[in-house]
Amino acid sequence: MAETEVKHRKILVAVCEGEESMYALSWCLNNFISRDSQDALILLYAKPPRVVYSALDGIGNLFSGDVIAAMERYSNEVAEGVIGKAKKLCQVVHRDIKVETKIEIGDPRDAICQMVESLGVDVLVMGSHGYGPIKRAFLGSVSNHCVQNVRCPVLIVKRPISTNGDS
Amino acid sequence: MAETEVKHRKILVAVCEGEESMYALSWCLNNFISRDSQDALILLYAKPPRVVYSALDGIGNLFSGDVIAAMERYSNEVAEGVIGKAKKLCQVVHRDIKVETKIEIGDPRDAICQMVESLGVDVLVMGSHGYGPIKRAFLGSVSNHCVQNVRCPVLIVKRPISTNGDS
Repeated sequence: MAETEVKHRKILVAVCEGEESMYALSWCLNNFISRDSQDALILLYAKPPRVVYSALDGIGNLFSGDVIAAMERYSNEVAEGVIGKAKKLCQVVHRDIKVETKIEIGDPRDAICQMVESLGVDVLVMGSHGYGPIKRAFLGSVSNHCVQNVRCPVLIVKRPISTNGDS
Repeated sequence: MAETEVKHRKILVAVCEGEESMYALSWCLNNFISRDSQDALILLYAKPPRVVYSALDGIGNLFSGDVIAAMERYSNEVAEGVIGKAKKLCQVVHRDIKVETKIEIGDPRDAICQMVESLGVDVLVMGSHGYGPIKRAFLGSVSNHCVQNVRCPVLIVKRPISTNGDS
């Protein structure tokens, strides 16, 4: 039953705008990866596909090309911001850890599961929600989907309840 | 964001008759607990409450006292067997690890969540199924319930698919 210890693990951390995923990354860095680790960390951000905001606005009119381009720029800035913040956090906790970053376009559930499969990831780490409240309303539970569909172990980290009662 | 490293974690591993939970324990010992760890491992087995088999048999007759006593003995033997196997596995992988064992009576979903809460567990580890196929049919997904209801991080370990196609 007991197998040899894995020394060079590929750990995929799904990150997003929400505090949950940054807390999950922080917890992973402090509790799962040892100081002398040879693990490789892959930070994945899944960007919503353009189709989500390129069809119609709220009153049934098509968005203009300018609006779509501005939305696309904003979406890219958010993605870069999230990945940048996550990378900085890794460097603060483990200065020498090998970090790779990925920005994928698509439903986060599919993007995460496909990345786990294609890279042969050893452990998937994610926040309990995985994605913010608006995306969650549309997408359902990302973490629950991933637990059911990936083959590797999944570490789900819940952010402690704050003193003002928010979760 | 980065917090100080936890040195003395309480890790609760939910074990049962199924191979999934023994694989999860093995994976945890090899991947989550370092050789020089000061972590405390708590092995929990949840035994079905007596009411499950003490009411009526399949044709509407009450079980006799002898049958109930025999079932109770069998249930205790299974619990002791599972806990014994799990403890042995811990000693093989980490000879010096501090291991505590618990046998609780009740729905495993409640038993696990209550134990996490009462002991102030830092990480919950369980197999992807948590319990065998018969119990699962009655109880639903134990791991999914626990992810939603405990406050600590949850590590769900799926047993790799075997070559004959079984999961």
